[in-house]
Amino acid sequence: MTSASEIRLKQRPEGLPTAATFELLTVPLPEPGDGEVLCRTRFLSLDPYMRGRISAAKGYTRGIEPGEVMVGECIGEVLESRHPAFQPGQIVVGGGGWRSHFALPGRALRKVDERRAPISTALGVLGMPGLTAWVGLTQLAKPRVGETVVMGAATGAVGAVAGQLAKVEGCRVVGIAGGPEKCRYATETLGFDVCLDRHAPDLAAKLAEACPDGIDIYLELVGGAVTEAVLPLLNLHARMPVIGGIAHYNANDLPEGPDGSPLLMRLILVKRLRLEGMIVTDHEAWRPVFEARVGALLEAGRLHYREDVVDGLEKAPEAFIGMLEGRNFGKLLVKVGV
Amino acid sequence: MTSASEIRLKQRPEGLPTAATFELLTVPLPEPGDGEVLCRTRFLSLDPYMRGRISAAKGYTRGIEPGEVMVGECIGEVLESRHPAFQPGQIVVGGGGWRSHFALPGRALRKVDERRAPISTALGVLGMPGLTAWVGLTQLAKPRVGETVVMGAATGAVGAVAGQLAKVEGCRVVGIAGGPEKCRYATETLGFDVCLDRHAPDLAAKLAEACPDGIDIYLELVGGAVTEAVLPLLNLHARMPVIGGIAHYNANDLPEGPDGSPLLMRLILVKRLRLEGMIVTDHEAWRPVFEARVGALLEAGRLHYREDVVDGLEKAPEAFIGMLEGRNFGKLLVKVGV
Repeated sequence: MTSASEIRLKQRPEGLPTAATFELLTVPLPEPGDGEVLCRTRFLSLDPYMRGRISAAKGYTRGIEPGEVMVGECIGEVLESRHPAFQPGQIVVGGGGWRSHFALPGRALRKVDERRAPISTALGVLGMPGLTAWVGLTQLAKPRVGETVVMGAATGAVGAVAGQLAKVEGCRVVGIAGGPEKCRYATETLGFDVCLDRHAPDLAAKLAEACPDGIDIYLELVGGAVTEAVLPLLNLHARMPVIGGIAHYNANDLPEGPDGSPLLMRLILVKRLRLEGMIVTDHEAWRPVFEARVGALLEAGRLHYREDVVDGLEKAPEAFIGMLEGRNFGKLLVKVGV
Repeated sequence: MTSASEIRLKQRPEGLPTAATFELLTVPLPEPGDGEVLCRTRFLSLDPYMRGRISAAKGYTRGIEPGEVMVGECIGEVLESRHPAFQPGQIVVGGGGWRSHFALPGRALRKVDERRAPISTALGVLGMPGLTAWVGLTQLAKPRVGETVVMGAATGAVGAVAGQLAKVEGCRVVGIAGGPEKCRYATETLGFDVCLDRHAPDLAAKLAEACPDGIDIYLELVGGAVTEAVLPLLNLHARMPVIGGIAHYNANDLPEGPDGSPLLMRLILVKRLRLEGMIVTDHEAWRPVFEARVGALLEAGRLHYREDVVDGLEKAPEAFIGMLEGRNFGKLLVKVGV
């Protein structure tokens, strides 16, 4: 084995990315430098935030330039270690990117406890999306027993965890998801009280019916029509952690007018809402607490998760595009290598 | 004395209120019922929130219907008391409305300490606007030494107090006010570091220059062009208590497009902003702490205030309209009676 594969950004997309946005290359196997660890990728995580990184708009971190490898978290198996804390055969998680093999400094890797849960969960329910859901719900929104929580992207990697955690906290949980199959999964498996199809033409009316006591918590992941249906139903002192807005990620321009911003500000005032932006990397210090609490729920069988696994690094672009269109069902992962 | 005057809402305004919005009537002197106190009004407070109350749009409290008396806080002198806690001659504050005389239950009145400061301050720096500023700044925005605070409506009843409190907390304070005279007052008397004229065509550029380290706190009182200039300069984790939006109060329709709401949500996410709506009546429990702290600053000469007093209840409509156009300079009060 002397070569590896990687996927680079070929050109910035206008709107939805296409096959031409990406480029698969064969490159020499990376060589680990001093203090570095060489891994083969077992799973690559595909997540909505990656759309922001390939956009020309200024984001919360440096974007990916054309010609650079796509970023992403990976589960890796150590092949060669030049760091004392790691040995060949160990399973680790780290920001390897869209690569079949990666070499990273040991300090940029975390070991995965293989006995606790399948290793892929370190990219999902026990990884970045799970931490996002846990911090957003428990540290920002702070649910109280009996409150109504609405989750857009209800079966997605973040929404499924946040909604189930809200059920654990004693809330009424109303999900919104794309299509009847996802809705059935949200109520039957995840235990949501109700789940509505986001394609329903009368979504706003259905949501009002599903939330007879209004909405106390809305984790913003999606934007667009879902948010428009949620806003009028928010109760006094409702909390709205702003974590994403996938409905807008492919937009080159703002929606047509009128400009709803003054109405949003007025709603924040009149309803005394709290909106708070959240980027999970700010909350790394919570990880041990998160892992203990969510891990315990997982072991107790109180938390379900679903993975949507595609096979082969070369499938990553197509799977990523599908995710931006809502075609994945569960945490989207790419299985890489054998 | 057997008659009194009061001003009622005659018809809801379309856009800016006019003289025809209001109606001055002579009515019988109110008679205090059991437990009530009859007062003659010494000062009536005019405040921007009143525009919301005469609007057809649903607000945070019941609106005023045509034919009803305009609401408002008053300083009153007790004429007759049927409540054991009050005696004739005492000075009180309460929601008397736009009236020359009012009768209210004793429990709806607070006594004013005449020795501490001029009684009119109970409607301004030591009253509702002062409490709004204090809660918004110290409890919601939580300033830290060295942070940059921007105050629109810098010489207004809330802005002047909030800006000076931010100076006490060790912040750099940049005001925005209407015209050179107000700006000079903000820097020379209130001690703001800079004050910019909101009519300046290059306001955004001037604000960027005045905030070389970005903006950490913006108390939203105004909306419109001021907010548009502020938003791009907000730092990571900036706080934005949403307290008002006077630029939009007279609007019948939303501004033309495009719809900036997704951009605002994206900014909240990327900058991890915290926006929090605030209505001062939720924070009544803070009043003793506020009075002690702000009263002490006032007595120590560390807090300045300016009143814009018009003489005669009949002048209230014109003064109120002027305030909505930014023509008042300081806390707007109507001196009523002799």
